[in-house]
Parts: sequence; C-alpha cells; structure tokens
Amino acid sequence: MGLTRRSFLNQVAQMGGYSAAFTTMDMLGLLPRAEASPLAGGLAPDTGKGKSVVILGAGIAGLVSAYELKKAGYTVTVLEARSRPGGRNWSIRKGTDVVFTDGTKQHCTWDEGHYLNAGPARLPSIHKTMLGYCKEIGVPLEVEVNVSRSALLQGNSLNGGKAVEQRQVIYDTRGYIAELLSKAIHKHALDSEIGIDDARMLLDFLSGYGDLDKASKYGGTQRAGFTVPRGAGDDPSKLHERLSLHELLVANFQKAEFYEDQIDWQATMFQPVGGMDRIPYAFAALLTQEIHYDCPITEIRKTANGVRIGYTHGGTPQQATADFCICTLPISVMQSVPNDFSAATQIAFKGMPMTSNYKIAWESERFWERENNIYGGISFLNQAVDLVWYPSDRFFSQKGVLLSGFNVMGDENGEPTEFGKLGDSLDTKLAASRYSVELLHPGHGRDLTKPIYVEWMKIPYSLGCYGNNHLAQSQPAYNQLIQPEGRLMLAGDYVSRLVGWQEGAALSAHRAVAHIASMTKG
Amino acid sequence: MGLTRRSFLNQVAQMGGYSAAFTTMDMLGLLPRAEASPLAGGLAPDTGKGKSVVILGAGIAGLVSAYELKKAGYTVTVLEARSRPGGRNWSIRKGTDVVFTDGTKQHCTWDEGHYLNAGPARLPSIHKTMLGYCKEIGVPLEVEVNVSRSALLQGNSLNGGKAVEQRQVIYDTRGYIAELLSKAIHKHALDSEIGIDDARMLLDFLSGYGDLDKASKYGGTQRAGFTVPRGAGDDPSKLHERLSLHELLVANFQKAEFYEDQIDWQATMFQPVGGMDRIPYAFAALLTQEIHYDCPITEIRKTANGVRIGYTHGGTPQQATADFCICTLPISVMQSVPNDFSAATQIAFKGMPMTSNYKIAWESERFWERENNIYGGISFLNQAVDLVWYPSDRFFSQKGVLLSGFNVMGDENGEPTEFGKLGDSLDTKLAASRYSVELLHPGHGRDLTKPIYVEWMKIPYSLGCYGNNHLAQSQPAYNQLIQPEGRLMLAGDYVSRLVGWQEGAALSAHRAVAHIASMTKG
Repeated sequence: MGLTRRSFLNQVAQMGGYSAAFTTMDMLGLLPRAEASPLAGGLAPDTGKGKSVVILGAGIAGLVSAYELKKAGYTVTVLEARSRPGGRNWSIRKGTDVVFTDGTKQHCTWDEGHYLNAGPARLPSIHKTMLGYCKEIGVPLEVEVNVSRSALLQGNSLNGGKAVEQRQVIYDTRGYIAELLSKAIHKHALDSEIGIDDARMLLDFLSGYGDLDKASKYGGTQRAGFTVPRGAGDDPSKLHERLSLHELLVANFQKAEFYEDQIDWQATMFQPVGGMDRIPYAFAALLTQEIHYDCPITEIRKTANGVRIGYTHGGTPQQATADFCICTLPISVMQSVPNDFSAATQIAFKGMPMTSNYKIAWESERFWERENNIYGGISFLNQAVDLVWYPSDRFFSQKGVLLSGFNVMGDENGEPTEFGKLGDSLDTKLAASRYSVELLHPGHGRDLTKPIYVEWMKIPYSLGCYGNNHLAQSQPAYNQLIQPEGRLMLAGDYVSRLVGWQEGAALSAHRAVAHIASMTKG
Repeated sequence: MGLTRRSFLNQVAQMGGYSAAFTTMDMLGLLPRAEASPLAGGLAPDTGKGKSVVILGAGIAGLVSAYELKKAGYTVTVLEARSRPGGRNWSIRKGTDVVFTDGTKQHCTWDEGHYLNAGPARLPSIHKTMLGYCKEIGVPLEVEVNVSRSALLQGNSLNGGKAVEQRQVIYDTRGYIAELLSKAIHKHALDSEIGIDDARMLLDFLSGYGDLDKASKYGGTQRAGFTVPRGAGDDPSKLHERLSLHELLVANFQKAEFYEDQIDWQATMFQPVGGMDRIPYAFAALLTQEIHYDCPITEIRKTANGVRIGYTHGGTPQQATADFCICTLPISVMQSVPNDFSAATQIAFKGMPMTSNYKIAWESERFWERENNIYGGISFLNQAVDLVWYPSDRFFSQKGVLLSGFNVMGDENGEPTEFGKLGDSLDTKLAASRYSVELLHPGHGRDLTKPIYVEWMKIPYSLGCYGNNHLAQSQPAYNQLIQPEGRLMLAGDYVSRLVGWQEGAALSAHRAVAHIASMTKG
C-alpha cells in the first residue's frame, strides 16, 4: 500500500508529551465549545505536511480522525476489517447479512427504506460535535422521538396485567407524591427543613405539580388521559381511573419513568434520515482514497521511527507503515491482536468488561400508530424483553421497523439478565420479543414479520457493544488506556466519558489528532 | 350562485331531532374511535342526493363539513369572507398582509419558506381526527418539538436574573421534592397514610426520582446538565450547581414546568411541513367548485323550506339558499350578523367571552441552536412577554422564525395581563418581545428582524381568538349553542370540548354533518 515512511527524530526530541497535547488542544480550539462545530478552530491545512498516520478501524473514531488529519495535510490510511465503514454504527436493511462469530447468518429482506440502527440510534442535541459533523458533511437529520406519552407500560400485577398509558403512570405517581408531601407539610413534619414562607409556596407548587384538589388530595387528572375522548356538543369524555399508589410501587417502573431524564436521552434528539449509517457513509465518501476495506489487523508494532501495521487483504498478509498510528479497535479485539502497547496497557485491555447488548427488530404494520396514537417513543415492560421502541421515521406510512428488545444479556460479572437466561435458541428469543409486543398490543404479536436479531458479543470485529468504563472496577484501566504511547495511541468511545455514544468516539478522535499535532510541531 | 332549492317537507316530518342525531352518529360510526380516521365509517355517497347545504366560513369546521358533505352526495356551497381558506388556521409568510380592524397594516417580507402559524401551530398525537385528515388529504407532517430540556427559564430573582436551563429547574425541583418526602417518611410523619412495605418501596422510588444520594439527600444530578461538558481522556466535566429550593419557589415557574404535562401538549406533537395552512389549502383544493371567497355574510335566515343567506361579493349584495346551513362564524361576529337563531341563542352568543391571544414573531439567525443546543421547545420568563418559542422546522438552517410572545392580552373580565398593560403602541410591544429574547440570549435581542404582530381581537372576521368555553360562566351559553335549530346549526371549536384546537372544530363539523344526515334520512 506504500505508506510514506519518514524519519522525524527531530520532532520526537521536541515532544512535549501528554500535558503539552492539552495545551495544544486548547490553543487550537479543540476543547469543547458552545457552538455545534466540529474541531472548532481546526488545524492549519499544512500541519501534517510530510507526515503520515495509519488509522485502524473506520468506525466513528477512525473516520473523524481520518477526516480531521486529512484536512490538516497528513497522509492518511485507514485499515478497516469490514467491507463497510461505521463499525458499530451499522444500519441493517434490505440485503444486509447479519453473520455471527458462530457462523449463524441472517439475511434482511425488509422493504426498501426500512432499517434497524443496530448500534447507535440517537443523537442528543447536547452532542454538538456529532451534530456539527452532520451539518458539515451534509447528513440530513430528523427528530428522533424518544418519548411518547401515549406509549405503554405493562406490569403483571398492574391493571390486571393489561398495559396502561405512560401518561397514567407518570401523572398518577406525581399526584400521589404531591399529595403525600403536602400532607407532611400540613402536619408540620418538615418545619425544621423549610420555613413558613417556603412551605406556603411549596404547597402551592405541589398543588399544580400533582394537579391536586383544594384539599391537597390527588383525585386523578386530565393529564393521565381519557378512556373516552372529548368531543363536540355534550361532553362524553371519561378520564382514566387512577392507578393506586400501591400498584404503581409494586409494578416498579423506575426504568421507564426515569429513562427520558438521563442527560443523554433528554429532548430534543435526532436521527439521520434513512439510517444512522448515513453518517459513516458521508465521511467515507470524503475518504475514498484513504479507506481500505476488508483489511483485518494482525499486528501493531512500533518501529524506531514510527509504526508498522500487519494486516491481511484477501487472505494475503500485508504491511503498512506510518509516522503515527491511531488504533480504534475494540479492547475485546485488542486482547488477541499482537501489539507493542505497554504491558500496563495490555492488562488494561482486560480491565474494562464489554457490554453485551442485543437488539431485536421486526417489520410490521404500524398498528401502534393507528390504534394507540403512538408516534415514536418507547414502551416498557417488566418482562424478559423489557422495551419496545417505535420508529421515528416515516410516520403515518403503512409499515415500519419495530424494535422489541434492546438491553444487555448479562451484567459485568456475567450474571445473566432475564433475557440472557433464555438460552441460546434464537426461536426462544424471538418468541420473547413477540410476547412483549403481544402483551402491549393484544392481537398484534402475529403482525411481526422478518425478525433480525443482533447480539454484539457475536459480531465479528466488535465482540461486544462497548467497554463499560462506567464501572468502578474499570477506572484503573481507563486511566491507563487514555495515555498515548508516543506515536501509538487509542481512540474510541471507551476512552471518553461518553462511552457508548458517537460523541465520545468523535471527541476521543479530536484528542488523538491533537496529540499527533503536538508531536508534529517543531 | 344558483343554489338548488328543494322542498323536503316529507323529510322534515320524519325528523328525529337531536337525540336521533346521536343514534345516527353511532350507527354511522361517527363517534370517536381509536383509529386515527376521519369520520370513521363515513356516510353512504348518496346520503345527500338532491339536498343542499350552505356552509358559512371556510375555517376547519367549515372545510371538514364541506368535505364530508360533498363525499356524502350533498350539494355544498361554502361562503368565506376572506380571500383564503383556513380562518384562524393562518400561516403568515412572505407577501402576507396583516391588516387589523383599526386599519393598521403590516406586510411580511421574510425569506422564502419562513412562516408564522398565527393561529393553531401544533397537532397532538391524540387528535386523531386531524391527523387522520392530514393522511387522507395528503398533508405531510413533521414532528413539532414542544419540549427541549436545553430551553431556558428566566426569573429576575433566580441566578442573579441570568437564564438557567429548563433541565436545571425540573431536576433540581424534583430532587428537593424527593428529598423532602423521603425525610417525612423517615420521620414516620406519613405512617397513617402508607404502610411499611409501600413506604419502603416509595423510598426506593424517590431515590431514583430525585437522584438522591444514599442518605436520601439531593446533592445535584447529572440530569441537570453540565457547565463544562464531558470529554475524552481526563474528565473535565462540571455539573451545574444546584439551584436552591427557595430560589426555585420564589421564581415560580409553574407555567413552564407544567406546560408539557397538559394533555393536549404532551409528546408526540406534529406540524404540517411548510405551515399549518397546508391543511386548509389541501381541503380547499378538493373543494374548488364549492368555496366562494370574498363573500362576507350579512344575514342568516330560515325559510319555510330551508335557509336563505345574505352576503356581499365585490360590494354587491347576494343571496344563497339551501336546505341546510352550517354556520361556523365566530360568536363575536354572530353578535352583529342579523340571524334567525332563537332568542336563547342570541343571548348565548354574548355568553362566552372571546380570548384575546396575540403572537409576535421575528426572522433571525438561529443563535439558539448554535449557542444553546436548543432545537424546538419553549423558553419561559416571568416578564410581560413570558414565552419564547423556537421553530421546529428546518433545523440547522441559517435563519428561522422565532416567536417571542404568545399569550392573552387580558382575562375574561377584561383585566389586562402584564403584556396587555403595555398599551396600544406596537413599538412598546415589540420592545418587550425583544427584551425577553435579550434576557434569555444576551446580545441577541438585536438579531431579531422583520417583526410581525398578530392580535386576534383586531383580526377582521375573527374578532378574538376563541370562545372561552372553559369558564364556569360560559356553560349556560355552551349548552345552548350546541343545540341545532332545525336546519340551522353551529359548528366550530367553541361548540366542542376541545376549544382552541382544530380537532374540536373537526369534531363539531362531524356532529353537524351527522345532524344533517339524520334530518335527510327517510
């Protein structure tokens, strides 16, 4: 492949190391800004003149690295094991083969335009780096509806097991909370906590918060919706009956109720029109000369003056050399790729467990729109398949892709979830998926067709969904993995504090680029 | 205009009256259904053969009436005072003249594609009749983002008057509520209200609800967002400092906090692509022969066999006759149109005050997207102009229409709001609008250009926004106005329990159509 090999001992002598990289980032305007702008400030277009970088992996971290380095004048080579860009940013659609490491193969035959975002599926508005790239490279976005108050919640002990609307659970719960706190204030139980004036204002607030009556009692609310809707003329409407606090507590809908509150899932959210992979394909279109597909990595070596990468192409061993290497391979993969990272880093590759996410999706008539007024959003159940996610694309069309099942198979200690306990049979998993839809939408389990099951632990070149750096046990590994090792450094969402998000991958790429820029200076 | 005049005394003899109309509606499937389907079941296409209906007003009630009656075989004439369809469903855009009853004129010169929905601007997903029509007559919809957690709240006493993010107010408030209620439970102040098991479950729930620490204390939450965002490598992020409960209570953001909870403002919401008036224009395109523009009504009379309508066209008095009349004129207009409605109805026309809504909109650079990650949603202030509403169309484009000011001028007793107190000067109103934007987005008040001010009380043929049938004092009028008077009947949102919404107008039209159908049978 003829990577340029150059000596740059002079530059190495002048390396300022890691802390210098941050100074450089700051100087170059690489640190996060208020504007939705990728790599604000940017690097001068001749920064990388005569310098070469090989990037391992054409996921978001690799693509952003390549895109920015190319703009800065570096000679860039991207080696990608798969025959497509994106990595976990993978949209499955008509013609896609889903092949597991165990050889299992599924072939997607959905209608034109239908897709499953098997990996990332949402772009929150606070992820300004990714939104900025979508604008810069021309990826049209549409709103991803993460919350619909018409979505459903199902618990076996609640309402006789019949699903209720999310608005009932949310506003009934709030009504009881407001009522109970009002009572405690009226009883002077909190006099030592809040003063008289605050108590008076809080009572007034709680009255609105819970939609309480004049006696500070919760007697139901229009917010929880109607069983018979309002109409013209005489008012035939009937409100939902209140769910009881006891039933609500037993049903324990914490995941459902607090889902939308997590900082990265708060409105407004977006998705690319036509599938999340429109992002990597848009990057790849700007990197046609740089990206080499079907090139799995076999070896990552430091040399005296740079790096040497072993890979195969069509089964034939190949080598690439460069001044720098950004490695974006998952740590699960790095555990078995011979490499020259330090001993501490080798240990760290095993110090951050991969999450075991799966997704199951079906093609179906949009019964949820017609019958339940559900347009986007997510229904939740306390079942093995605990989540049904409705499509936000092509509302009001006849068919859509319904996701029934999205969670992990087990926890960080390998303890299986209810879904994980179902065992290896695909049929059993699909039956569980269909069952959850049937519980929410009686009679419609049978409308689900053409299932696609993605289990990230079994996806070649991913071998898991993401390195779980949220865990306390992962912190030593994290602290090690974020250290560049001279001309060799890692990038990927797992070396960011936005793990599992493209934003983290992009920011880690910026950091790697800034490090290379700091080593190039002189 | 040659309306067909027919005798149908035989049918009249068989009229079953009002209660029969409901039986008919039910038989015909006109009562609300779960499906998003306009006039489910529908009328047989020969129901109205040989019968004629004159409809006064081409707003949503009139258009839906005309559309359904035409489908059912009636000869339909729509008389519309304006030169456009839609009534209050009015999108102001390049070239629109806004002319008030006092002669004041504003001319809109915004960029192509920009618009203000001066009247209705949202379609909630539970308004299945309107969503059904959009599907049936081919009006493309997009998501209307009613809530952005990045939107702002401003109170003079909070945070030194500097705006805070909505997520801070919502999650800090929730944290304190959860903490206080947890304390009351721990103090056994609510032992007589909830049992031990429920108390235990509630404490667990509250811990998640408020994101409390292990001691059930609220110490801030990631949900409230960051002042320094998360990044790659070392974590530089900083959370917002908690706002104090006292400050939050004094600021009193009840309107802001409970806005999204109202049943008709809950997610998911939609808007037609290109402006709300795409709906009336789509109806009108199917009724080109039936609608007669520039025909203000001067007289509404019953005759022995039907109705006789006086109107003018080009200043010339004209007459139209028909078997039936559906009158959709606002009650404010009906007060001065000579008519043959009963004495009780004449009184009722004055028994339901019109709301005095206004809107102010500007063309501007989208600084709120670039600087605040605000994509749609609404910011609130406790100022004369208390609401700034961000556009949900064409996200990420350069400019957009920003609505700064949407409320009533005074209450039902004529008591002016803070905005109403500003007086008659347009400059003063615009300054207040600009000031609110400046408070939320310092430095950007000056970016607002080309203001448009709409005051519904001053819009000819509307003379107010809607008949406020929510008020207790309005109920006698409501009960009178919903009664058809033989071949003469009213339709419009104000004779529905969804007043101020197109859904109510459409359902009132269905009811009028069903009444006519019941009178036509035999």
